[in-house]
Amino acid sequence: MPTETKPERNLAIVMTADELLSHWQGHRRLTRRTIEAFPEDKLFQFSIGGMRPFADLAFEFINMAMPIVHGVATGKWEKFAGEKPTTKAGLLQLWDEQTAAIDKAFPQIPPHRFAEVDNAFGMYKNTGIGTIQYGIDNEIHHRGQGYVYLRALGIEPPHFWERE
Amino acid sequence: MPTETKPERNLAIVMTADELLSHWQGHRRLTRRTIEAFPEDKLFQFSIGGMRPFADLAFEFINMAMPIVHGVATGKWEKFAGEKPTTKAGLLQLWDEQTAAIDKAFPQIPPHRFAEVDNAFGMYKNTGIGTIQYGIDNEIHHRGQGYVYLRALGIEPPHFWERE
Repeated sequence: MPTETKPERNLAIVMTADELLSHWQGHRRLTRRTIEAFPEDKLFQFSIGGMRPFADLAFEFINMAMPIVHGVATGKWEKFAGEKPTTKAGLLQLWDEQTAAIDKAFPQIPPHRFAEVDNAFGMYKNTGIGTIQYGIDNEIHHRGQGYVYLRALGIEPPHFWERE
Repeated sequence: MPTETKPERNLAIVMTADELLSHWQGHRRLTRRTIEAFPEDKLFQFSIGGMRPFADLAFEFINMAMPIVHGVATGKWEKFAGEKPTTKAGLLQLWDEQTAAIDKAFPQIPPHRFAEVDNAFGMYKNTGIGTIQYGIDNEIHHRGQGYVYLRALGIEPPHFWERE
């Protein structure tokens, strides 16, 4: 085993807010295609190992996305107000509305809020960037689970590397 | 449907190289715990829907991690030279060696290389940050699939939010 090394500092800027938004929306386009790939009934009912169906996971992403952007932007942490859609078309429509809302709200985040620590939703102490990154990572994590559902159903998932 | 809006610019710095490394190593600690959660035989053999066993996915992460860091740092894109471990202990030992290697190499990435476009592994045209982010996202994506394997086996996966 190599000796543990303490990392040196590397303060290079690797990402701006604009780039993070583009990256996230690329992931969101892939998630949209994953929703589309499910047959309607399987989207709302199919699961493995007692886990949630993919519609529930997708609605969780919606429940986190704009409330996180709004919370980081304003310091006000509010739950998503909408109802969970009961059809694939309804879920995709809500998804598209959120895409537009995120594109509008994200650039309004004051620069200092990314590094500022806040108590997200009154429960999760983290920097603004940490909370946003958590939301994106959570989407990637659960979407990967949707890929297993699709494979188990004999359906080819969308290409992971396509983000347009 | 809301009218499509063109995003305004937000050039706030959201992440430095140091912060990205910390974030990644947090994810890598979670992936290590996911490897640990598998029984030895299931780690190398269990799969759903014709997908790869989790040991293969974990070895893919190793195949990408240091070669990406080295390639972004130096412009030299070289395959991982090691053999695929055949035991859980061997996989975890290799994982830990890579953890130390990444901690040592990542801070050496010249700042300009994050935004510079390169042809990663002679095949994938992307910025340095884009290639690194792809590797991290790929790990989150496939680790999420490992969670489904664990649930299907009746095993509780590690908490997604724990990164220490």
